[in-house]
Amino acid sequence: MRVSILAVGTELLFGQTVNTNAAFLSKNLQLMGFNVMYHYVVGDNPKRLKETLAEAFDKADIVITTGGLGPTQDDLTKEIVSEYMGEKLVCDEKVIDDLKAFFEKFGRKMSQNNIKQAYMPENGTTFYNDAGTAPACAIEKDGKCAICLPGPPREMTWLWNNGVKSYLEKFLDKKMFYKVIRTIGIGESDLETELLPVIDGQTDPTVATYAKEGECAIRVASQRDTLEEAENAVNQMIQRIDALVGQYIYSTDDEELKEVVVRILKEKGLTLSSAESCTAGKFAAAITDVPGASAVYGTGFVTYSIDAKVNQLGVDRNLIERDGVVSSTVAEAMAVQARNKSGSDIAVAITGYAGPDADDGYKAGDAYIGYATSEKSGYIEVHTGAARRDWNREGFTLRMLRTVYLLIEGRL
Amino acid sequence: MRVSILAVGTELLFGQTVNTNAAFLSKNLQLMGFNVMYHYVVGDNPKRLKETLAEAFDKADIVITTGGLGPTQDDLTKEIVSEYMGEKLVCDEKVIDDLKAFFEKFGRKMSQNNIKQAYMPENGTTFYNDAGTAPACAIEKDGKCAICLPGPPREMTWLWNNGVKSYLEKFLDKKMFYKVIRTIGIGESDLETELLPVIDGQTDPTVATYAKEGECAIRVASQRDTLEEAENAVNQMIQRIDALVGQYIYSTDDEELKEVVVRILKEKGLTLSSAESCTAGKFAAAITDVPGASAVYGTGFVTYSIDAKVNQLGVDRNLIERDGVVSSTVAEAMAVQARNKSGSDIAVAITGYAGPDADDGYKAGDAYIGYATSEKSGYIEVHTGAARRDWNREGFTLRMLRTVYLLIEGRL
Repeated sequence: MRVSILAVGTELLFGQTVNTNAAFLSKNLQLMGFNVMYHYVVGDNPKRLKETLAEAFDKADIVITTGGLGPTQDDLTKEIVSEYMGEKLVCDEKVIDDLKAFFEKFGRKMSQNNIKQAYMPENGTTFYNDAGTAPACAIEKDGKCAICLPGPPREMTWLWNNGVKSYLEKFLDKKMFYKVIRTIGIGESDLETELLPVIDGQTDPTVATYAKEGECAIRVASQRDTLEEAENAVNQMIQRIDALVGQYIYSTDDEELKEVVVRILKEKGLTLSSAESCTAGKFAAAITDVPGASAVYGTGFVTYSIDAKVNQLGVDRNLIERDGVVSSTVAEAMAVQARNKSGSDIAVAITGYAGPDADDGYKAGDAYIGYATSEKSGYIEVHTGAARRDWNREGFTLRMLRTVYLLIEGRL
Repeated sequence: MRVSILAVGTELLFGQTVNTNAAFLSKNLQLMGFNVMYHYVVGDNPKRLKETLAEAFDKADIVITTGGLGPTQDDLTKEIVSEYMGEKLVCDEKVIDDLKAFFEKFGRKMSQNNIKQAYMPENGTTFYNDAGTAPACAIEKDGKCAICLPGPPREMTWLWNNGVKSYLEKFLDKKMFYKVIRTIGIGESDLETELLPVIDGQTDPTVATYAKEGECAIRVASQRDTLEEAENAVNQMIQRIDALVGQYIYSTDDEELKEVVVRILKEKGLTLSSAESCTAGKFAAAITDVPGASAVYGTGFVTYSIDAKVNQLGVDRNLIERDGVVSSTVAEAMAVQARNKSGSDIAVAITGYAGPDADDGYKAGDAYIGYATSEKSGYIEVHTGAARRDWNREGFTLRMLRTVYLLIEGRL
């Protein structure tokens, strides 16, 4: 069953908003076993929306729109889609009640223009929205189905999870299963070369590599009559892949490195603390993104200034003056002190230049990562080669995670 | 001049990758004065790519592709686009040399399949890539222009800034100028209602509101013969908007709230510190995202556990036991202690429940933000109403920034 996603909103064509909705829907649709054919983005323009809708239906059985369900004058998706599907919009009193309750909850008065959001397709399905003001709807006609979802990601995902997903199940025939393997320490073309024996001539499961920031992933997907068959085919293929490139794999279940790190720390009953200069909280934030991180992580030091490194963490000021604030010895001392001060089993620390500027003969992207355990302490040199501050801060954080991963896996 | 963006990559249709390239290109193309008409995403499938390319050219003068320039077998964009434009691919020796140098730099051996990346359109323009292995290219024919850019955002943006942007300037006639006004504390439909006098019947500049996470933005755009005329028209409109909704505006120049906060702190010569429980470093990371933040921010405390709040920050353990770790008094005490320990002028702190779980009669999304200056201390209650951990952590961080903003603007 072919599905395409049509996002409506001039803000997307202005580049003010990133189309994360298309990624969310695609991922979930593929997981259910739909074939996602195309993404389209069109502005708040009735004529172009109508044309693109027709094009999308030309090559898909189901078209899901996002955006343009708001209360304002340029929100026209529901109107255009209903017209295209030959449906009339009629006032749904329940939506009016929901809207009034929604605004009351937040102590705000409902604008008159919100009433437009209560007009729903007469013979369609309405999905009431507990996460915002715009209900979603579905219209079926002549073997085609149009679904209109609101644009704000929170509302869209809430509606997906509370109605739209179950509604779509009736359209499925074959079942798809896929897993994503995550690797570090190998480039995409080397990875593909290593995997050629399982990629060449393979039709199902399919094996595809793709580059993510700082790492490579391998997607293994199978489409069979039952979910169980598809899952078995994928798992067998993963065993073959593990035999070829197992040394680079840190997850066969699309876990983020931070999730893997928290999981292993929990399994081993170890606690972690951190001291951050150039990443200034990004590592702590990454670890605590993982629900349940409090079992393994309690204390973090954001020591952005030299004074903070000395006063808050207790790093020797003479050491900083002698070796420079960006140095292997300071990175290691930060980790040792973070461990001492917090009482954690393991500590990781970083000092470096995120950019745009650097100093002392260093370039933006140069840093030292320090680590400390009860048995040893040490450091790792980092050169991202990138000039951009945001990339370096992301890259540094990923490398801190990798350092902890190697440390707790006994590979450092 | 109409431009459309065609992203190629099955990973986008699988939802494994978010199409940030389309947003980056759109923003930059609009800033130059191009009209971005459509975004398309198509998988690594030659037939569908060819068809979508034809559709895109049907409604645009320039089509920019991203992705599918890699060394692997499923990378086919350059081949399909060249064929569509009637161009032959020939080997470019300079690219071979660049590739060899690139791999040498990172101490890796070039894979044989990378050579495919050196085949460029015979009569096209090649944009050499210093940020990766895939060069970009442009082909012009019969008033149409196709540009192929690589998919990894780093390489794509590098090539945009180093060649592609300048190349495109020759296609421009009218000049576009726009600004984005950022507001907090007002919903989208209320904002539009307030702005009706400048929205109704307005053709140039155009005024459009759109919701961003936790706030609303207003885009004011003008297209005129010269950039100066467009800029004047936009600035005059911004004055009219300021007269209507000035109390909600925190930036008329699309600055992030964190940028505004760092700028005002600098202007006023004030320093800031933070103590974070549930956001655990996200506030510190947000402030230090801004280049030059070190002038105003030196110390952050990530006190995720009760022990860290007591030992690292010096919050009274009895207070925590009496009022609970999520309480207004603990939030305020955390801010007071962060200020005392760091010696900063201002401190902000947070304690709350990010979710998915909460305790003590609180819900996920409930938190207290504490603040302290030399003159006063206090707290703000937060209820995001959201259940998701990541949304709450983002929402909490934004509200901490807003607290500091109101504090330094003398509005708290």
